[in-house]
Amino acid sequence: MSDSSATIAAPATPAGTSAIAVVRVSGPECAALAGAIFDSPLPARTACHHDYRDIAGQTVDDVLVTFFAGPHSYTGEDVMEISTHGNPLISQLVLDDLFKRGCQPAEAGEFTRRAFLNGRLDLSQAEAVMDLIHARSARAVAAANQQLRGSLGQHMTRLTDELLLALARVEAYIDFPEEDLPEEDRGIVGDILTNVLRGTERLLATHRYGDLLRDGIKTVILGEPNAGKSSLLNTLIGRERALVSDEPGTTRDYLEETVIVGPHCLRLIDTAGLNPTPGTVEALGIRKTHERIEEADLCLLVLDCTHPTPPLPDDIAARLHANDTVVVLNKIDLTNHQPLVAIGPADLPTVQVSTLTGAGIKELEAKITEIADRLQPPEAGDQIAINARHADALRRATECLATARQNLMPLGPTELLASDLRGVLDAYGEIAGRIDNEDMLDRLFSTFCIGK
Amino acid sequence: MSDSSATIAAPATPAGTSAIAVVRVSGPECAALAGAIFDSPLPARTACHHDYRDIAGQTVDDVLVTFFAGPHSYTGEDVMEISTHGNPLISQLVLDDLFKRGCQPAEAGEFTRRAFLNGRLDLSQAEAVMDLIHARSARAVAAANQQLRGSLGQHMTRLTDELLLALARVEAYIDFPEEDLPEEDRGIVGDILTNVLRGTERLLATHRYGDLLRDGIKTVILGEPNAGKSSLLNTLIGRERALVSDEPGTTRDYLEETVIVGPHCLRLIDTAGLNPTPGTVEALGIRKTHERIEEADLCLLVLDCTHPTPPLPDDIAARLHANDTVVVLNKIDLTNHQPLVAIGPADLPTVQVSTLTGAGIKELEAKITEIADRLQPPEAGDQIAINARHADALRRATECLATARQNLMPLGPTELLASDLRGVLDAYGEIAGRIDNEDMLDRLFSTFCIGK
Repeated sequence: MSDSSATIAAPATPAGTSAIAVVRVSGPECAALAGAIFDSPLPARTACHHDYRDIAGQTVDDVLVTFFAGPHSYTGEDVMEISTHGNPLISQLVLDDLFKRGCQPAEAGEFTRRAFLNGRLDLSQAEAVMDLIHARSARAVAAANQQLRGSLGQHMTRLTDELLLALARVEAYIDFPEEDLPEEDRGIVGDILTNVLRGTERLLATHRYGDLLRDGIKTVILGEPNAGKSSLLNTLIGRERALVSDEPGTTRDYLEETVIVGPHCLRLIDTAGLNPTPGTVEALGIRKTHERIEEADLCLLVLDCTHPTPPLPDDIAARLHANDTVVVLNKIDLTNHQPLVAIGPADLPTVQVSTLTGAGIKELEAKITEIADRLQPPEAGDQIAINARHADALRRATECLATARQNLMPLGPTELLASDLRGVLDAYGEIAGRIDNEDMLDRLFSTFCIGK
Repeated sequence: MSDSSATIAAPATPAGTSAIAVVRVSGPECAALAGAIFDSPLPARTACHHDYRDIAGQTVDDVLVTFFAGPHSYTGEDVMEISTHGNPLISQLVLDDLFKRGCQPAEAGEFTRRAFLNGRLDLSQAEAVMDLIHARSARAVAAANQQLRGSLGQHMTRLTDELLLALARVEAYIDFPEEDLPEEDRGIVGDILTNVLRGTERLLATHRYGDLLRDGIKTVILGEPNAGKSSLLNTLIGRERALVSDEPGTTRDYLEETVIVGPHCLRLIDTAGLNPTPGTVEALGIRKTHERIEEADLCLLVLDCTHPTPPLPDDIAARLHANDTVVVLNKIDLTNHQPLVAIGPADLPTVQVSTLTGAGIKELEAKITEIADRLQPPEAGDQIAINARHADALRRATECLATARQNLMPLGPTELLASDLRGVLDAYGEIAGRIDNEDMLDRLFSTFCIGK
């Protein structure tokens, strides 16, 4: 990290030929820089046209510049946003000039880190900024928006406030080691602990939503060989290819593709065909298929409607439920839209499609959306979906809460009880970032992008 | 082109994960849209934080929006710039919503076309916007900046004004067919034509600058086999790779690479080695080399300083001049930095380098910059560098001026003379776009990018 008193600069938009590109500057020197570059002070929050003159006096571009006076800015410091023509060379000329004038290149996440350090965002809100930027589905955008607006922080504040009432009661007795916590207070503290534990566990349960939103819904395509599994994958991808971003760092092998279906992001996983009489190598593939089905959030069982289908292996049949499986009856085009064979396991929702003509694909997407909707947090109200860091802290909180309950009933030493409760508060505090841990901040913000 | 009364919307920044992304909207519905989306009117030119709520009432993002009231905006219409978090999915959600609310997708160049049609830019300035966005070197940026500020337009206005004085004198006599243009007036008109022709030819001569700035300086690397031509190419590319943008549409084959050296953009062209005793296929390559050297703006003759070099073919030796050639004495690392052999053709500037260690490359770049500086328009004063469209119009203007001079001396019919002069004015008018030609505008703006 650069010196936190430095004025930092970085591109805020991707490199590429476009209408405009934005360079962002934050720090105490912003106002002085504006005066030097544009020959005039900049009124706050007003978009002004100016010639950008470099330190040698050469005009670099005709820019639109907006100045945000701290503390009412993204970072809480003075900030300047410079909109140039959309040419990476011009952004580079502007940045080179800013560096010559004493600015430091911003490191990944440094603008948001400053926003956090200056109290403009709590840590869960800072994470929501990154979630917003990386969101792959409308649902993930909505959940990140809620977190950015402090929904998780508010939950943590409520739990913290409640727990503080318990801690106050307990600590009042620490100074009187000869006295036990009175029965009445033990009852009150016990009720609070039960309540708070329940709230913590409810939040912890949203970790599954978080995974679904951030990583996509693991959707396994299975079925006998040649039922059209890969064609289905390609059909679903083809319809949505334009919306899938080529984000670096997304792990994919040839078996996995990310697609957007309605407001949801799906990780489509193709599997080896369930050949009932497989060769040795094939058997290995089928074992992998079993593993994938175990981990699946959603299963698409593809059947060829022109052939009778051999029965599914028992363990797979037992795994498929109406609430997370769709039977896709393929090749309906070959049968004049009347399936020739029985339509797979009873009680599973079924859609007739043709991956060749595209018939039925819309209906399939609607059915997928319906199931995916049920896997997600409800659209109305709190769309809390915690991440792995939050889950880790909340798990530690539940452990401390459990120990605290043991130390309360039968009553253990009051100091131990108080120490347990403080452990819970510390764990809660980590979520909003009220813990001073430079290493953790370094790790967290280094996953952000430059310019944010 | 969409209906010119439509309100148009498009992304203004490249798709990609970044801090922010900008969506631009222009047209009569901007103010009403702002009211509907943000639940409040937007003060002009003030960056305001708002929730972007889509037509279904769902919050899409926390955005920064700036409203520019027409006619004081880029397009001359009401304009709204919406800064979202830098996620292509969010830009798409915002655009989809704007389209649902009645906006049309902007076509390539449509914002700038509207700026031109609303008199905010003349046509040469609109072209300068595109030049700025596509500029590959600091020099090209500087020249485009000048043109954006109207330098070419001012030249054209001066020439037009002068010519109008001549036309006025000539037209005064059209209504009196029995009278000849008096001797005195013929002298004045003749002087004006000479003057204007000289000015037109001076502008026309800057077409070469325009090609150099827009396409890069054609730099041919030549020399005997194994002198290190390809290593030199790779060394020059390697140092600057980061600055070379992967712009689509740039034609390259394996022989040609674009590099930035100082403020200049070079098209480096590797050639077949000048083997004095070539095989048949090799001879073909060498013939190509001769052709490339003919077309070169700058030549880098690479010699291996550890071997005596066979003399250059006569025609090539005759082609190489001190004002556009550098002798690159390579492999200096093998000789303890003392060249073992004579340093190539006399009178040519020479730099000793090692493409292996990088020694001398900085000095070579300085020498290249010095020569390239001389090929370019002077940095101070007018950096006019016309493009092919301007050159075409100016060539037609010079033809009309030549005919006019023939019709003046000896004196032909006054009507013909006047018609010639009007031909010149029309040709001049095309440069600033004072000619109503819908097809030409369609062609020109379709080469722009979406969102500009």
